[in-house]
Amino acid sequence: MTRRIGICTGGGDAPGLNAVIRAFVKYGGGRLGWDILGIEDCFNGLLDRPLRVRSLTPRDCQGLLQRGGTMLGTTNRGDPFALSTADGGRVDRSLDLKGGAEELGLEGIVVVGGDGTQAIGLRLMDELGIPVVGVPKTIDNDLSNTDLTFGFTSAVAVATEALDRLHTTAESHDRVLVLEVMGRDAGHIALHAGISGGADVILIPEIPYDPDRVAAKILARRAKGRPFSIVVVAEGALPKGAPTDPATRKQRIRQGRGAAAIVMAQLEGRIQAEMRACVLGHLQRGGSPAPFDRLLATRFGVGAVDLVVQERWGHLVCLRNGEIGSVAIRDAVAQKFVDPKGEFVRTAIATGVELGADLPL
Amino acid sequence: MTRRIGICTGGGDAPGLNAVIRAFVKYGGGRLGWDILGIEDCFNGLLDRPLRVRSLTPRDCQGLLQRGGTMLGTTNRGDPFALSTADGGRVDRSLDLKGGAEELGLEGIVVVGGDGTQAIGLRLMDELGIPVVGVPKTIDNDLSNTDLTFGFTSAVAVATEALDRLHTTAESHDRVLVLEVMGRDAGHIALHAGISGGADVILIPEIPYDPDRVAAKILARRAKGRPFSIVVVAEGALPKGAPTDPATRKQRIRQGRGAAAIVMAQLEGRIQAEMRACVLGHLQRGGSPAPFDRLLATRFGVGAVDLVVQERWGHLVCLRNGEIGSVAIRDAVAQKFVDPKGEFVRTAIATGVELGADLPL
Amino acid sequence: MTRRIGICTGGGDAPGLNAVIRAFVKYGGGRLGWDILGIEDCFNGLLDRPLRVRSLTPRDCQGLLQRGGTMLGTTNRGDPFALSTADGGRVDRSLDLKGGAEELGLEGIVVVGGDGTQAIGLRLMDELGIPVVGVPKTIDNDLSNTDLTFGFTSAVAVATEALDRLHTTAESHDRVLVLEVMGRDAGHIALHAGISGGADVILIPEIPYDPDRVAAKILARRAKGRPFSIVVVAEGALPKGAPTDPATRKQRIRQGRGAAAIVMAQLEGRIQAEMRACVLGHLQRGGSPAPFDRLLATRFGVGAVDLVVQERWGHLVCLRNGEIGSVAIRDAVAQKFVDPKGEFVRTAIATGVELGADLPL
Amino acid sequence: MTRRIGICTGGGDAPGLNAVIRAFVKYGGGRLGWDILGIEDCFNGLLDRPLRVRSLTPRDCQGLLQRGGTMLGTTNRGDPFALSTADGGRVDRSLDLKGGAEELGLEGIVVVGGDGTQAIGLRLMDELGIPVVGVPKTIDNDLSNTDLTFGFTSAVAVATEALDRLHTTAESHDRVLVLEVMGRDAGHIALHAGISGGADVILIPEIPYDPDRVAAKILARRAKGRPFSIVVVAEGALPKGAPTDPATRKQRIRQGRGAAAIVMAQLEGRIQAEMRACVLGHLQRGGSPAPFDRLLATRFGVGAVDLVVQERWGHLVCLRNGEIGSVAIRDAVAQKFVDPKGEFVRTAIATGVELGADLPL
Repeated sequence: MTRRIGICTGGGDAPGLNAVIRAFVKYGGGRLGWDILGIEDCFNGLLDRPLRVRSLTPRDCQGLLQRGGTMLGTTNRGDPFALSTADGGRVDRSLDLKGGAEELGLEGIVVVGGDGTQAIGLRLMDELGIPVVGVPKTIDNDLSNTDLTFGFTSAVAVATEALDRLHTTAESHDRVLVLEVMGRDAGHIALHAGISGGADVILIPEIPYDPDRVAAKILARRAKGRPFSIVVVAEGALPKGAPTDPATRKQRIRQGRGAAAIVMAQLEGRIQAEMRACVLGHLQRGGSPAPFDRLLATRFGVGAVDLVVQERWGHLVCLRNGEIGSVAIRDAVAQKFVDPKGEFVRTAIATGVELGADLPL
Repeated sequence: MTRRIGICTGGGDAPGLNAVIRAFVKYGGGRLGWDILGIEDCFNGLLDRPLRVRSLTPRDCQGLLQRGGTMLGTTNRGDPFALSTADGGRVDRSLDLKGGAEELGLEGIVVVGGDGTQAIGLRLMDELGIPVVGVPKTIDNDLSNTDLTFGFTSAVAVATEALDRLHTTAESHDRVLVLEVMGRDAGHIALHAGISGGADVILIPEIPYDPDRVAAKILARRAKGRPFSIVVVAEGALPKGAPTDPATRKQRIRQGRGAAAIVMAQLEGRIQAEMRACVLGHLQRGGSPAPFDRLLATRFGVGAVDLVVQERWGHLVCLRNGEIGSVAIRDAVAQKFVDPKGEFVRTAIATGVELGADLPL
Repeated sequence: MTRRIGICTGGGDAPGLNAVIRAFVKYGGGRLGWDILGIEDCFNGLLDRPLRVRSLTPRDCQGLLQRGGTMLGTTNRGDPFALSTADGGRVDRSLDLKGGAEELGLEGIVVVGGDGTQAIGLRLMDELGIPVVGVPKTIDNDLSNTDLTFGFTSAVAVATEALDRLHTTAESHDRVLVLEVMGRDAGHIALHAGISGGADVILIPEIPYDPDRVAAKILARRAKGRPFSIVVVAEGALPKGAPTDPATRKQRIRQGRGAAAIVMAQLEGRIQAEMRACVLGHLQRGGSPAPFDRLLATRFGVGAVDLVVQERWGHLVCLRNGEIGSVAIRDAVAQKFVDPKGEFVRTAIATGVELGADLPL
Repeated sequence: MTRRIGICTGGGDAPGLNAVIRAFVKYGGGRLGWDILGIEDCFNGLLDRPLRVRSLTPRDCQGLLQRGGTMLGTTNRGDPFALSTADGGRVDRSLDLKGGAEELGLEGIVVVGGDGTQAIGLRLMDELGIPVVGVPKTIDNDLSNTDLTFGFTSAVAVATEALDRLHTTAESHDRVLVLEVMGRDAGHIALHAGISGGADVILIPEIPYDPDRVAAKILARRAKGRPFSIVVVAEGALPKGAPTDPATRKQRIRQGRGAAAIVMAQLEGRIQAEMRACVLGHLQRGGSPAPFDRLLATRFGVGAVDLVVQERWGHLVCLRNGEIGSVAIRDAVAQKFVDPKGEFVRTAIATGVELGADLPL
């Protein structure tokens, strides 16, 4: 009997999602002859009636490799165990989902998504008996059980290109330019792009920063005849001593006080300088994936087929020491942070970058 | 006797400034054998003692064509007739400038800059007797006496690429994404990039917008199964009825209420949608110039040499019907606005773009 | 009664063809409510049975603006008056085409294509009574009745980017790098890209080159401590005295002796240097259109609708002094060449470029 | 006493060379206070009199990170033990080099280069007593003792972008497009770019190809309604049975019969199709390094400083399992080839790519 496998994408989109879908369909559908059903908007496609799923064949994947985003749509509001209702409440619709999967005769579902989505996937398996295979997705690259995730390289490329642009204009004007990049909890994007783009200051969530050090760096550059400075700041970076609880963070964001605005406010009292902020936001998620991300996503898609063939349900594809492998989803939740004593931070310091704290070289 | 000509760049930087300098130096210096002196930071290089000028030869221009920014630096605070002092006052230092120019034996100065800089150049000539030739520079393309200015095409390219990126992520998420681009008084960048990037809504200073129309467009798209929308807004665009005086504008900006934030606030009461803003800011000024801007800037630089050869002092290089010409600086001040009844607006409307007002097709 | 209009694309593809189709469909189909039929592979879609046409609505044009190529396909082998047969002969199938158009009830056809395609379009109208409107397409920009054609700016961008790349590697190695770009009869691409990309030598069909001058330029650069040189050569450029008849040209190409190879052969006896060629070929036609081309193509598509509305059959959309207009197809055939005494050539010379001939500045 | 260390770059250039120099100078010179001397054109700068070396400080490295190529120049003709003479002979000038190094008081030399250059470096150390530290450089990524080398990611990006471009034009025209990429001995670039760019056929030196399989793939695509195909071929790929000895290879190249031309000749007898070749050549070496290469090169430069500090002369920086380490140069010579049974080849096959041989999935 022909295998019938579903695939869905959840959480924020990342360049490479379409490449995962394409590889899964080309290998599983085209080569192995499975029925592949694409489920729309993460799990929501199985909750709605009529069901929102579509049969996917290699032909549907033409031109998909180069395209950012996800052809299946995605959402953060798709937890079938606690779905938001119109009146702001929550309702458990997981049985509807189970019904949908049974109606379609799905043998299992490939869940492409981040921590939250994988945790839901695990509950589908544990509580509803729906076999799942996971493919990790975090543009922030902050997942501990895989060397790299797709989308990260593309996001770093966008941020680095922005730094290249800012350099030319900063050099003409004697300004401090502050670039805010993604990274709520982990500073990988800021650190990679900051080094690649030749930033003078890099501020990340893992290293609460001392504004005096940042100001001193800018002044030292001026004293050496370099009157402009470029600061990269992760959206989750904060000065030392600032409250980091989620409620305060939310309030800050509501007030339009993002990380870049906070840095500039801290510097204003300390140095005289024209300052400008640039917040990349969703530009980092968009556009055609970098070649590396297309390749990694393709490898992940192939890896997902392999896990289904091997019936390693409950496992997540991962990259370890450059090779595709797998790990139990349940063991894969830990976040991966920038190590303040690690090689990347040390590389930054060695090449003259200020990280806002007194760190050993 | 060898001619000795100065060149300086003023106002906000624009991709192509270096290409103007290079062409002027290669032709005037390399081919015609003039002494070319680059004056740093607009007119400031002639005010400071020691003078901040440097001799420029073709060799100094290697690799310059591709580089954004300006090797000479630029500033908006360089009016020698009314220079800011440390205590916030103003002082007329134009005689120092005259002295500097005389000390160097400058026969004339090529002034590359926008309206403000050209007006100062004219005073140098009229009041101090320093001959000038002008090269227009406005990244906003809002100068009435030239078809196009360099930098504009590059800025449109940055904004269009941003729209391309936003499209992929918007399609995955059912969101309203608002992109704020340059254009305080004129909406050329927003209109060109908006059409080129396939925006659904384009809001420009010349057409005060009705938020109800914008909301209706977004809802109409949803009704047709397109749940995302992309809005491009020029930084100077405002809803109809909003006060447009400079003081109010400044206050708005101080409060972090840029054009994108205002649009989102207007929409919030009218539609239910996740909205995200992206403010490009200085990214639009940075980076390597687009090929067209390199070519136009090179033509302008060659044109400036021609004006000096012809001793058409007081004239500005310009592009008219695709050909390089010149116009008296004194006649060249009028701003060029988007014509709400013009072909570009009509093109937008014809292809389904909402401009926030009831305009005839 | 609903208008029913066909649209087809012919000749070599150019970035922006899809944007023309999209604008035509959005305006004519979406706004004015016409039935638009896309004809596949130029006129061939009307020759085959079953007919190869598809109804086009704005929905079919989603994501089309950014895409290079043409969704309708194109071909150079679509002359219905003289169609190639399997045995190498020719057959007139124009009556089949007429039959196809009548069967579909087409009121007229919008023909997007170059000289050859437009000439066929005119015969459709004159000999078969099928009304046509033309949209010009030549990536070489060599059409006399329009300031610019879409695709040209994109091709120049590809060639300029290639020059930027070659510069970095040439500077490291003391080499002569020869870049061959499109331009069989006209050198616009070579000239624009060569100036924009800072080439040292630009060779175009309109100016037969003297290899001694090219060699002298390279040696002069060496003498000044610049041991590398970059040569841009249009595919149709030839040394002076070389036979330019079509038969010889074809033979040359068959022997793999393109313009770059010929230049290198000419230089080999004259200078000692490592030389490398790079032939861009179809890279210049591919990829997402430059913003300017998307805009121009959109304006052309809107202009085509206007011509249909005005029933100006037999006319071609064009750009004149920056504005969209039209011209009778029958008057639009003349090719536009680079003027050896024109401003662009003069700009090149003034900035130190060698064009291979003794030209006045 | 201040340390004085030389640095030079040898072999073909690769994007990232400047980033290595910059990091080495910023850390060794700026932070640790060493005298850094840049040696021009690999070892040649130490052979010529006057010596061609320049003192390098962090100020000299401004803007260097983004720049492709190498500021120090490079050459393949710099073996001081067997230097080419004007009359085609060879001369050992290693003692001159030793004299140069002694005159400058160099404590050691950091040699950035490929196999050949490293082998020479080792002889400097073994035979002349000049301590060296190596930094690996091969754009082909074919070095066995490091996971990755800088430049490779940039080259793959150029090739992938070319494939993206070719896709749009191929789809419009029903053609076979053949892209020839670098890779004389190893097919890493072709394989990575081919998968990332969605090639239909990938031909690499490690897998001699059967032209019948390639033709069959193209025909199979046609039968499925996909009348175009994209073939990526590494410059060293050959049909099975073809002589692979160096003399034959050289002769082929002299006759302009590169890998792409050979593929097309093989296909011509087997299928009816318009075919076009595109040979990227030096475009793959040029341009600004990809962010990943800038980061890796920076890490290598920092690693080189560490090796000097630790006086691990005779060692080469490398990347192992994502971390910077080192290996004795003498052990680092083995080339790394694509494993026909490895994961990358398998990924290609699984997603439908034809590799020209009967390989197991």
